[in-house]
Amino acid sequence: MPKITAITTHDVRARTSRTLAGSDAVHTDPDYSAAYVVLETGGSLRGHGMTFTLGRGNEVVLAAVRALEKPVVGLTLDDIRGDMAAFWRRLASESQLRWLGPEKGVIHLATAAVANAVWDLWAKAEGKPVWKLVADMPPEQLVGCIDWRYLSDALTRDEAVDLLRANAPGKAEREATMLRDGYPAYITSAGWLGYPDDKVRALCRESLAQGWRRFKVKVGRDSAENVRRCAIVREEIGEHAVMMVDANQAWDVGEAIEYVNALQPYRPLWIEEPTSPDDILGHQAIRRAVHPIGVATGEHAHNRVMFKQLLQADAIDFVQFDNCRLGGLNEALAVLLLAAKFGKPVCPHAGGIGLCEYGQHVALIDYIAVSGSLDNRMLEFADHLHEHFVDPIVLRDGRYLPPTAPGFSIEMRAESIAALTWPGGSEWSA
Amino acid sequence: MPKITAITTHDVRARTSRTLAGSDAVHTDPDYSAAYVVLETGGSLRGHGMTFTLGRGNEVVLAAVRALEKPVVGLTLDDIRGDMAAFWRRLASESQLRWLGPEKGVIHLATAAVANAVWDLWAKAEGKPVWKLVADMPPEQLVGCIDWRYLSDALTRDEAVDLLRANAPGKAEREATMLRDGYPAYITSAGWLGYPDDKVRALCRESLAQGWRRFKVKVGRDSAENVRRCAIVREEIGEHAVMMVDANQAWDVGEAIEYVNALQPYRPLWIEEPTSPDDILGHQAIRRAVHPIGVATGEHAHNRVMFKQLLQADAIDFVQFDNCRLGGLNEALAVLLLAAKFGKPVCPHAGGIGLCEYGQHVALIDYIAVSGSLDNRMLEFADHLHEHFVDPIVLRDGRYLPPTAPGFSIEMRAESIAALTWPGGSEWSA
Repeated sequence: MPKITAITTHDVRARTSRTLAGSDAVHTDPDYSAAYVVLETGGSLRGHGMTFTLGRGNEVVLAAVRALEKPVVGLTLDDIRGDMAAFWRRLASESQLRWLGPEKGVIHLATAAVANAVWDLWAKAEGKPVWKLVADMPPEQLVGCIDWRYLSDALTRDEAVDLLRANAPGKAEREATMLRDGYPAYITSAGWLGYPDDKVRALCRESLAQGWRRFKVKVGRDSAENVRRCAIVREEIGEHAVMMVDANQAWDVGEAIEYVNALQPYRPLWIEEPTSPDDILGHQAIRRAVHPIGVATGEHAHNRVMFKQLLQADAIDFVQFDNCRLGGLNEALAVLLLAAKFGKPVCPHAGGIGLCEYGQHVALIDYIAVSGSLDNRMLEFADHLHEHFVDPIVLRDGRYLPPTAPGFSIEMRAESIAALTWPGGSEWSA
Repeated sequence: MPKITAITTHDVRARTSRTLAGSDAVHTDPDYSAAYVVLETGGSLRGHGMTFTLGRGNEVVLAAVRALEKPVVGLTLDDIRGDMAAFWRRLASESQLRWLGPEKGVIHLATAAVANAVWDLWAKAEGKPVWKLVADMPPEQLVGCIDWRYLSDALTRDEAVDLLRANAPGKAEREATMLRDGYPAYITSAGWLGYPDDKVRALCRESLAQGWRRFKVKVGRDSAENVRRCAIVREEIGEHAVMMVDANQAWDVGEAIEYVNALQPYRPLWIEEPTSPDDILGHQAIRRAVHPIGVATGEHAHNRVMFKQLLQADAIDFVQFDNCRLGGLNEALAVLLLAAKFGKPVCPHAGGIGLCEYGQHVALIDYIAVSGSLDNRMLEFADHLHEHFVDPIVLRDGRYLPPTAPGFSIEMRAESIAALTWPGGSEWSA
């Protein structure tokens, strides 16, 4: 039985700020980075996990990972999978460390890296990709991976079991559909805020030629500039393609309403992160005022309690959680179930480094086992840094093909870790 | 002109878990700790600041403080006080570091330590205590210390100026009242959850003899036990003293309503932290269901956007922010103004280590310059660890006497820092 004997950490950073890939209204110079974690077992089986950051501060997340050694090292895989929710709560509610959150910020990002490394370890031990490991679980086992605290006023454990049971009959067919067709995606690579117009036009044309029909555009604090950029993209992609816009938290509530309504002629499907990610009531007010444009948020919504309220308040149309911002897959499963209960589509946040690799598993679990639907659902895609992974994502005709290798697809190539290690790797010392 | 040349950090921890002082329903073994920061100027003038933690993880906050050196070191005091809001935003919205929050968790705790050290530096440079520095500011200067982003749907900068102007005429008289009588306090030291009944009874009697008439009691997950403890405290303190109860986030929303209503016979003034600190809508539901018991929260509410919503949703009766959980005094001033606009009393969270020292300044600013009221207002007091401060709090007849030494009262004695340094100090090596 594998036993976790140590946690190894790596400070992995790509120097993406050189190209302005990933630039937006508030993140002007990101260096896409991973606080990277390896659970050692003394043998060849290892659990790999990471959380995503923008560069500076990656070392702070790794300090938090080391603080989590105490509740993890020494456990066997059976200790963990025997009561996965209790294991997760040991991480998320450690009696002294919880003051640093609770369940938010650096300590929750670290919880995600460690929890997802455990999922990787478990899936490898069973010889399955994570999506298949979870999709194959009986309903009681799946809900047993979730810490249900603070959710019962919106969704009880028993309701969740009933929901999973009701969707169980179609699981095999949906899995076959995914293996044949893949999961629908949209592309963000064309519209980074730091890109000049001619580059945006060229990337739109290139993406159209590659088969993409759904495009996300970054907008910012200058409303006239936003209108101009959306007009360019709409002109390039034509009337029938889908456009989404993303403000990355740039606006106050009143500004958001005014600036989003100025984009109505270009018919965006959603406005993403119009204001503070903590502002549930603000999103509710914006949503009421910008119809028929939908409201999307979640990459900075930090835990299941925030999503519970976004859903209770009918504040969003699209649920965009991030598998690292939430405390890993355990909490992502809770949000999938909440979204299914409230009838809202989940479109996971991806991009960055490793987030597409993680996100495909979550999207597949949602379709095969939880919501059973593809309506209004699509997974973000950005064309960065996939070459660093042992089992990178595979896209075909704008859809993610399900990974088949055991684990969570997050293991990085040894030579990539060496090259991207900050500050000594060749990426930084050159 | 003083210039910040370096940030020195100290990992200061008191071994309070030995006595169960500070124990509650979810924090069972706290070691009251300070991520302690000194802004060096190359001369004898220094800025001292800290944020509070429960022990493990204190080193993670200090790693975050070091990550904030970049936007701080090299600035002069004039650079900062010339546009205090812009300085604060440089900390809270650093383009890469903000991913670690934004404005929450470890990076925000670190922002608080650094921002409050700047306030200490500024106040010492002017030879005033911080409360006096702020209370003496013209309205425009005070609101110029606040980052107004995300607030305009609830309170604009202009409204805040008007509010301060309307209260300005009574400032001198209120200051004189404070210097004569002090600010009202309540005591938490009697009712820690880990204390046996006879110790609680003895501490209640002792506190009554010292003049205390307001007492807070910790409650937990066992409703019958809560009823029993409240009955004991009510019996000891009599019918006319004030009792508050504090659940430290132990319950789901439905449980909170049931368990709080079971305490109605003992007439607590408020239930504090009945559920997740992120659950604005949950607090709203609880408040509606437990009247006439009031709802209080805030020591884990992480920024001004959360307080904005708690007030917009009429979800709480008492605003209990923590000057370290928020990003320091700049953000605390925003919440004081929001609370004044919505007509809710602020009763700052204190206790721990250093929080009473900080909290007295905030409470004095609220009374003298912002709300102008003492109605339903009182500052928490716990009788721990004040001996470690150069200018410790002074209480008389259950009231805080205003500090008169320049600064934020947070400078620790050099021998205390040495003794409490983790893990090498005598507190830990003995």
